[in-house]
Amino acid sequence: MFIRFITTGGTIDKIYFDALSQFEVGESQVQHILAEGLVQFDYDIVPFMQKDSLEITSEDRRRLRDYIADDDAQRFVVTHGTDTMPETAEALSDIEGKTIVLTGALTPARFRTTDAVFNVGMAVAAVQAAKPGVYIAMSGQIFEAGAVRKNRSENRFEKL
Amino acid sequence: MFIRFITTGGTIDKIYFDALSQFEVGESQVQHILAEGLVQFDYDIVPFMQKDSLEITSEDRRRLRDYIADDDAQRFVVTHGTDTMPETAEALSDIEGKTIVLTGALTPARFRTTDAVFNVGMAVAAVQAAKPGVYIAMSGQIFEAGAVRKNRSENRFEKL
Amino acid sequence: MFIRFITTGGTIDKIYFDALSQFEVGESQVQHILAEGLVQFDYDIVPFMQKDSLEITSEDRRRLRDYIADDDAQRFVVTHGTDTMPETAEALSDIEGKTIVLTGALTPARFRTTDAVFNVGMAVAAVQAAKPGVYIAMSGQIFEAGAVRKNRSENRFEKL
Amino acid sequence: MFIRFITTGGTIDKIYFDALSQFEVGESQVQHILAEGLVQFDYDIVPFMQKDSLEITSEDRRRLRDYIADDDAQRFVVTHGTDTMPETAEALSDIEGKTIVLTGALTPARFRTTDAVFNVGMAVAAVQAAKPGVYIAMSGQIFEAGAVRKNRSENRFEKL
Repeated sequence: MFIRFITTGGTIDKIYFDALSQFEVGESQVQHILAEGLVQFDYDIVPFMQKDSLEITSEDRRRLRDYIADDDAQRFVVTHGTDTMPETAEALSDIEGKTIVLTGALTPARFRTTDAVFNVGMAVAAVQAAKPGVYIAMSGQIFEAGAVRKNRSENRFEKL
Repeated sequence: MFIRFITTGGTIDKIYFDALSQFEVGESQVQHILAEGLVQFDYDIVPFMQKDSLEITSEDRRRLRDYIADDDAQRFVVTHGTDTMPETAEALSDIEGKTIVLTGALTPARFRTTDAVFNVGMAVAAVQAAKPGVYIAMSGQIFEAGAVRKNRSENRFEKL
Repeated sequence: MFIRFITTGGTIDKIYFDALSQFEVGESQVQHILAEGLVQFDYDIVPFMQKDSLEITSEDRRRLRDYIADDDAQRFVVTHGTDTMPETAEALSDIEGKTIVLTGALTPARFRTTDAVFNVGMAVAAVQAAKPGVYIAMSGQIFEAGAVRKNRSENRFEKL
Repeated sequence: MFIRFITTGGTIDKIYFDALSQFEVGESQVQHILAEGLVQFDYDIVPFMQKDSLEITSEDRRRLRDYIADDDAQRFVVTHGTDTMPETAEALSDIEGKTIVLTGALTPARFRTTDAVFNVGMAVAAVQAAKPGVYIAMSGQIFEAGAVRKNRSENRFEKL
């Protein structure tokens, strides 16, 4: 089994720079999470972009859609900021014959307490166990693209 | 969605007692892992037994099988020691109409670096995304009962 | 033995708020660090202010100086942002007969990898073992007030 | 400033081997702790032995005493199992002109929650700030050799 991971930025990869007290998107934490999960499948990680998801444009989504559609892999895990994850999931939903799972984190993976490890674990399982389609793995659940939203005031994902 | 977690012991719940330098099975870490994963589904946790999996007997497996078969829940995640996880998976495999995922850890959940969080994340996703049946979620993969073994020298799970 | 901890803000207590992607000073992490250190002495924690140290004014430093000078405790650990920690140490240096140790962190205490725990451990030891005076415990070292600076480009504290 | 670290085993360096469910003393965690503490002084780490402290003999203590007495360094941090740490401290207490601090941990450094980082931080500060002599840094306190015991039932160090 082979999984292609595509990183696009978001809270999961946020890093803190002391000098200016800013919090920016850093290099992907996916590799560290997979190492800690002691995974034994083949994979690679494509650093597609490093953006807060509020800054992701329609053009970015089109490029991502084309990238995945043209790639010969069957299983994709896309790490993504949470604020517009549902929009990106919908933008990918006309891709046929592939299983694509978006995930991310409400708290940076570098934190001592973070949902990032659990979420990537969910995404890795869903991309193997679910039938082809586009899904979001957040808040302990596997949602289908088009049927999920982020409830910002409650800081969780829920079914539409 | 409702998931019933059943804990049976194993490395995932190992705890270290200083006085005698022993390492014993302690209270379940599942609750902490789910809290860290920021899950938003209904669940409960049944502490079924606290055993190293090498000490689990056929009678234990029969009781576990009957417990799950008689329970009205549809989705079960069973945490279990790794050494005989495949045997227990097979012992449950005649249960029909339910999705049952066994998982555990090669390193205790209380460790700073552990596969426990990733593995429970995988199990939670697989129990939602997979069709009814019995599965093992370990080594980054979802295996079907009866088609998986622990390779002890390599310390990983692999397809038979 | 009794130690009075005084928290003033800084990176050690930074917290990340997802909604606006900001990183602000949150409630003190000192209590969690002392609990993890399994300390067995008497102490209390005074939340004096919550400021980035670049925003600490001369007036703030005067108030802090007076607070410590007037307090009947003998040993003080002050957590503080790193950028102006040397200035605050100097502002306290005319207090006589008390041992005062300033510490903080280059990476937030909530991070998985952080110097906060180590640094608070250093401060707790220095406040017991050093003779009365004002010190900074950072970068693995105990510096005397007036003889230390933060080398910002190297992100470390060093002797003047 | 130069500090020589000497590791002798104990809980701080315990490691868990899954195959046999044993918990043995592994390679020293001191280097990782110092890296996380972002220390900026010169040091080296001497792996002197790897023993549970209950197994340390008078002969071991004599060898350790001679090693330190003959070494040209002035500051030593000795990591050690907790059960007989006071005995070893006393065995070193006739060494003159050097500052020696023993420390260790009640919970392994590899655990997610551990006193090891805090304790090594304390030892590093004490070995700089205290006058020559032999000390134990545990339970948030700096004890003098000969005036400290481990209260095993309370799992803490206290003054004699």
